[in-house]
Amino acid sequence: MTDLLEKDASPERYDRAEDKLIYLQNLVADNDMPTIEAFLGEQSEYEIANLLESFPSDDRQQIWQVVPTELKGEVLAEVEDDIRPSLMENMQAGEIGVLAEDLDAQDIAEILDTVEETVRAKVMANLDDEVRLQVAHLESYEDWEVGDYMDPDTIQIQSDISLAQVQRWLRQDDDLLDDQTQELLVVDKTLQLMGLLSLVDLIKYPQDSLVADYIDPAITINDRMDIQDAAAVFRSEDIRFAPVVNSFGELVGQLNAEDIMEIIQDDVDSTMKHLAGVSDDEELFAPILRSAKSRSVWLGINLLTALLAAAVIGQFEAVLSQVVALAVLMPVVASMGGIAGSQTLTVVIRGLAMGQIGGSNRWWLFNKELWVGMINGIIWAIVMAVIAQLWFDNMQISTVIGCYIAINMTAANVSGIGIPLILKRMNIDPALSASVILTTVTDIVGFMSFLGLASLLIL
Amino acid sequence: MTDLLEKDASPERYDRAEDKLIYLQNLVADNDMPTIEAFLGEQSEYEIANLLESFPSDDRQQIWQVVPTELKGEVLAEVEDDIRPSLMENMQAGEIGVLAEDLDAQDIAEILDTVEETVRAKVMANLDDEVRLQVAHLESYEDWEVGDYMDPDTIQIQSDISLAQVQRWLRQDDDLLDDQTQELLVVDKTLQLMGLLSLVDLIKYPQDSLVADYIDPAITINDRMDIQDAAAVFRSEDIRFAPVVNSFGELVGQLNAEDIMEIIQDDVDSTMKHLAGVSDDEELFAPILRSAKSRSVWLGINLLTALLAAAVIGQFEAVLSQVVALAVLMPVVASMGGIAGSQTLTVVIRGLAMGQIGGSNRWWLFNKELWVGMINGIIWAIVMAVIAQLWFDNMQISTVIGCYIAINMTAANVSGIGIPLILKRMNIDPALSASVILTTVTDIVGFMSFLGLASLLIL
Repeated sequence: MTDLLEKDASPERYDRAEDKLIYLQNLVADNDMPTIEAFLGEQSEYEIANLLESFPSDDRQQIWQVVPTELKGEVLAEVEDDIRPSLMENMQAGEIGVLAEDLDAQDIAEILDTVEETVRAKVMANLDDEVRLQVAHLESYEDWEVGDYMDPDTIQIQSDISLAQVQRWLRQDDDLLDDQTQELLVVDKTLQLMGLLSLVDLIKYPQDSLVADYIDPAITINDRMDIQDAAAVFRSEDIRFAPVVNSFGELVGQLNAEDIMEIIQDDVDSTMKHLAGVSDDEELFAPILRSAKSRSVWLGINLLTALLAAAVIGQFEAVLSQVVALAVLMPVVASMGGIAGSQTLTVVIRGLAMGQIGGSNRWWLFNKELWVGMINGIIWAIVMAVIAQLWFDNMQISTVIGCYIAINMTAANVSGIGIPLILKRMNIDPALSASVILTTVTDIVGFMSFLGLASLLIL
Repeated sequence: MTDLLEKDASPERYDRAEDKLIYLQNLVADNDMPTIEAFLGEQSEYEIANLLESFPSDDRQQIWQVVPTELKGEVLAEVEDDIRPSLMENMQAGEIGVLAEDLDAQDIAEILDTVEETVRAKVMANLDDEVRLQVAHLESYEDWEVGDYMDPDTIQIQSDISLAQVQRWLRQDDDLLDDQTQELLVVDKTLQLMGLLSLVDLIKYPQDSLVADYIDPAITINDRMDIQDAAAVFRSEDIRFAPVVNSFGELVGQLNAEDIMEIIQDDVDSTMKHLAGVSDDEELFAPILRSAKSRSVWLGINLLTALLAAAVIGQFEAVLSQVVALAVLMPVVASMGGIAGSQTLTVVIRGLAMGQIGGSNRWWLFNKELWVGMINGIIWAIVMAVIAQLWFDNMQISTVIGCYIAINMTAANVSGIGIPLILKRMNIDPALSASVILTTVTDIVGFMSFLGLASLLIL
């Protein structure tokens, strides 16, 4: 593991994040604070944030004490919202103020979001006027708005100067370009946005030619737009950068590659979590009680829907008490419809996120899912009827389970596309609620058709 | 919608991908080919690919006929693998050869992957020697290896020249920098990789200083590494670019921001699809029969596991026939364990992908999930026991369902972390199979404990 400590400006072998984690775990177990400090000194702010997120709360506090002071600010801005308050618990306003000096407005706003009002006021009072205004502006946005995620520092250039002039100007101030910069914003005399100039074009083309000759069109994003919608734009337009404008068309900031990457990842992550009934901000190493509480909500909703299904079954006690085989087959009932429905749901939710579903193709898709449901329904109906016949040697039961599977898988597929489309029309995020509604529908339709059929055919 | 057609070098209002889709749908419905051609002429290759993916097969063929010839190559490289063969069905080797002239080796290899051997040979014969060698090299990799995804064109510079010299050299050849370039590779006299120079640093620092002064360390990726593992490295190290080396340490290519974005998205997408039992390459508008077939596999596996659960229930026919209320409560049994387990599973799979789970924290997590399971188990056990008591007015049944919920939710949480960790140890992708194994375990444990308890307490 010693090669982990030999990090310099030469290419290094890839060391899995997990190796670093285990190495740090051993140091923490040995309580070897000097070596931990040396190790952290060689990691980036991202790596330190990722490592901090990988420890339970007590160990995390201990490691935090020896994070290099010059990185603490950036690490704080980087860690998940859930974790930040615990790291800042014992910090004074003065200390936070010192950290803030090296940060840009975006990071400061992120950090101040999770401190008390008195601390916030003290830190704000110590900031440069320009940065304070930027932070205040960022704080004016809701946490789901683009404005809350944008970088307020844009680099604006005129279109009638030469590429060489642009380069010289960029070199005059070391702070203008940061590591993430890929695009410069071209504005006209009235500061209206004309388009973009990429760093690649700035280097590549003859230096005496004018900026105006190499302007790329820009897709702008509104500052009050929902950040998830903005992520969908980035994905469907395949862009890596966008200027942000307010409702007056004034340039107020930019979204760049790093932010977008984070947004897109967060977006898919949260879709995945929502589909499984886990809250957005549940963090892997959250304390037991917090996790238990956050998961309880979904379990409670789920219990309600399961009770609804139970109530449906309760209506058929007569047939159940006569034919126990029906009860035996009930897990098959609950399961096949649920799986068929969530297969469709996953494909549809992904398509919605990509902007690929709309207009007339909704009916095409609806029709497709109907047919897929019927075809698979009939195939598995036959398979299941044969199995049931061999098992129970009772034609009525085999007929019931067969018909049931054909009906329910068709209904499940149709619901798998119908429910998210209806939710979207109602402006409800389909990822958040489609899966619980779908389960309820497939369970209730499932048991009702299964036991209803059984009552008709057997009683 | 006319503003969609007014795209020039000025910033344009954001037009949702869906608006474009509906606009194109209307044109296709009107069979207005000239307007479709004009519309497509103003879209990027990404947008055209996304639009083609949003149409059923017949319409797609029709639209493909009027995609601007100069974009056809890039669109082909961009569309999903599933769709490409149908677009290329009627193309001759000569036609493909012409398209290939404007493409880089990466795109050509992607396209040739889906054509017949005779066509492939003809196209290869027409390529420049250098490009042909590159394509052949890319084709030597398996489709899950980093080498299959890398860009073989790297830009290599020496460390002992000045930044101004680098810039002049880059301008001599228009093709060196492409839109995606962010980093240059710095090599020593023996062509060994020393590190990276970013375009930002190239512009920002005094032009008479040496490259050597601004070399950033590089994390290299092996060309035979699994692309999903590489995606995990990018995510956990938060890097946007990596040089690719072969097993002799020789530089063979690079992975850059665009590729990585795609890989990371594909990775999360496929995790999401796998968790829902949908095959990786199921495309939204795939023909009915293909979708039905691809989903059948999972439905079949699921039927097997449901039958296992049914077999467990079959062992308890005696108690079921006496107490119908047990059958009524069975959906609650199947449901609560399943939800609790998949909540844990989702959090764990995400943590594994981020490299945050390993070494001693596995036991901490295991312990945490055990407690979360027990706490939520006891809470919902009490709630459910009270409900059952009110419903059936039978202490035995209430006791059984209460005990069952406490036991099963604990078991589900423990399985939710145990199963993916065991699968990982066995080198099986947890996202692919953990969810079906988990369902089987929670169903079987669930019904066994529920009906077993009932037999003990009631019979």
